[in-house]
Amino acid sequence: MIVTLAGGVGAARFLEGLVQVVPAEQVTAIVNTGDDITLHGLHISPDIDIVTYTLAGIVEEAQGWGVRGDTTNVLEMLKTLGAETWFLLGDRDLATHIRRTELLRGGATLTEVTDLIRRALGVAVQILPMTDDPVATYIVTPQGAIHFQHYLVQRRAQDDVTGVTFEGVDRARPTAVVLEAIGYAEAILIAPSNPIVSVGTTLALPGVRAALEETRTPIVAVSPIVGGAPIKGPAAPLMRAQGFEVSARGVGECYRGLIDILVIDTVDAVLADDIRALGIDVVITDTIMRGPDEKRSLAQVTLDAANARLSRS
Amino acid sequence: MIVTLAGGVGAARFLEGLVQVVPAEQVTAIVNTGDDITLHGLHISPDIDIVTYTLAGIVEEAQGWGVRGDTTNVLEMLKTLGAETWFLLGDRDLATHIRRTELLRGGATLTEVTDLIRRALGVAVQILPMTDDPVATYIVTPQGAIHFQHYLVQRRAQDDVTGVTFEGVDRARPTAVVLEAIGYAEAILIAPSNPIVSVGTTLALPGVRAALEETRTPIVAVSPIVGGAPIKGPAAPLMRAQGFEVSARGVGECYRGLIDILVIDTVDAVLADDIRALGIDVVITDTIMRGPDEKRSLAQVTLDAANARLSRS
Repeated sequence: MIVTLAGGVGAARFLEGLVQVVPAEQVTAIVNTGDDITLHGLHISPDIDIVTYTLAGIVEEAQGWGVRGDTTNVLEMLKTLGAETWFLLGDRDLATHIRRTELLRGGATLTEVTDLIRRALGVAVQILPMTDDPVATYIVTPQGAIHFQHYLVQRRAQDDVTGVTFEGVDRARPTAVVLEAIGYAEAILIAPSNPIVSVGTTLALPGVRAALEETRTPIVAVSPIVGGAPIKGPAAPLMRAQGFEVSARGVGECYRGLIDILVIDTVDAVLADDIRALGIDVVITDTIMRGPDEKRSLAQVTLDAANARLSRS
Repeated sequence: MIVTLAGGVGAARFLEGLVQVVPAEQVTAIVNTGDDITLHGLHISPDIDIVTYTLAGIVEEAQGWGVRGDTTNVLEMLKTLGAETWFLLGDRDLATHIRRTELLRGGATLTEVTDLIRRALGVAVQILPMTDDPVATYIVTPQGAIHFQHYLVQRRAQDDVTGVTFEGVDRARPTAVVLEAIGYAEAILIAPSNPIVSVGTTLALPGVRAALEETRTPIVAVSPIVGGAPIKGPAAPLMRAQGFEVSARGVGECYRGLIDILVIDTVDAVLADDIRALGIDVVITDTIMRGPDEKRSLAQVTLDAANARLSRS
């Protein structure tokens, strides 16, 4: 099994490449749920849905989330009925949240629901929520802490950020199947996702970091920072707020002591020695996933790095 | 205030006529909730929605329910995700159920939610659920009792019917505002709705029949049975199962001791004496509401009958 720690769009694209180089049935994605939010009484799991829709081939590719060609008739009516509609939810996408919420209220775990949905959509990759417990990422601003989705979507990441907290993470537990996947993995890949609020949430779950530190399986991360800026999303202010430089080197510092290898972009080759000084091997390649070829190539390079490390050890 | 006891489509059309002859602000509809059902984890109130959408001018007129021109993208995706989709729910219609469910779960009463929704849709008629408590109409068949919507929609009213029960009705209470509306009404009109499962549900609530019997306000019902058959819906087998003839006379028997006047169709004029023998005055008119004119005319005749009785008493 190849295990990937995943956030949303970057991870989904990386996984699209990965299933081109290994059978999808041999891939497990452990997905961040710290971005989950309840809106309109419905449980929304943005990262899980992005990964699921992408691997199902129904994602709206240009934006990286939502269902391709989706309509917004429900949301327009919800607005008429006085609901807050700052979070865009398409009609087909809402069906996922309705189904998920119904099953959760019926007593199913998020892990069970996620599995049912990905199978219904024909996804062969095993998609695992990092936890079945509630964890909520809050962004600390001078005006107070706000839920990640309020920060990112409603307020468009315009607030100054002084910190990040994961509400509930101390009481949350990674699921048994997540710990099993880590324990039995032949390779552990950290997708090019936000190291603070995507991968960082999973790493903050009690027991996950220890499990990763214990395993002798090679751990390879792909830097989501290229040329000093994230490919997508609000990584820059969040990394800065947590005391990290916004660079591939900063990503290395985030994962110091945890990963064996960091895959960085060719434009960041100059940082390789600094990263190696952190005790992390470096692989330099083109990491921008413009299309299927780049996705496959990045996955292959990342997997090869893990396998090379494995055969050496 | 003019109070109308209402079911779904027939009542909604009758109310459309009524607001042509009295200011909508002076009309209160007490609506059956025995048909309510939870599907996909959402609280659906079919009769309330039919009345609300109709008075808001957004109902799909040909079928009498749902939102005009609605799409079904959510439902199609729900089907893909393994949900049962025998109950047709349009996208805009689903927004109502999502909003209702969210507010109910937040602690609002069905009365409060119904009021919020009708106001948001610009409806001036006061729409009152008959109760805020759970009541579920079950149809008894030789194979067992099934929820009314399963009987009507899923199984297309094909089962033999041996009885009708209202689950929870003994523990349910009409809301205070329903009893107040009855107490202060200048006229109480019973819409041409199913006397067993639409109006009958409201009448079965503890205290409602007594309140109607106590009031000196004239009570006028409009027969939903014309020429021995219901204009719409499954009234025939349900009336038969409850021991009533499927005729305007049978409707009179349903409401015996309760109503002062029954408005019947001209085709049923021959039954007038039989109905008068039940102690019920009869008004004969055209009761088929083909368009706005017939709706207005039927409402006017019904209201005139109430007013005439009032001035006599």
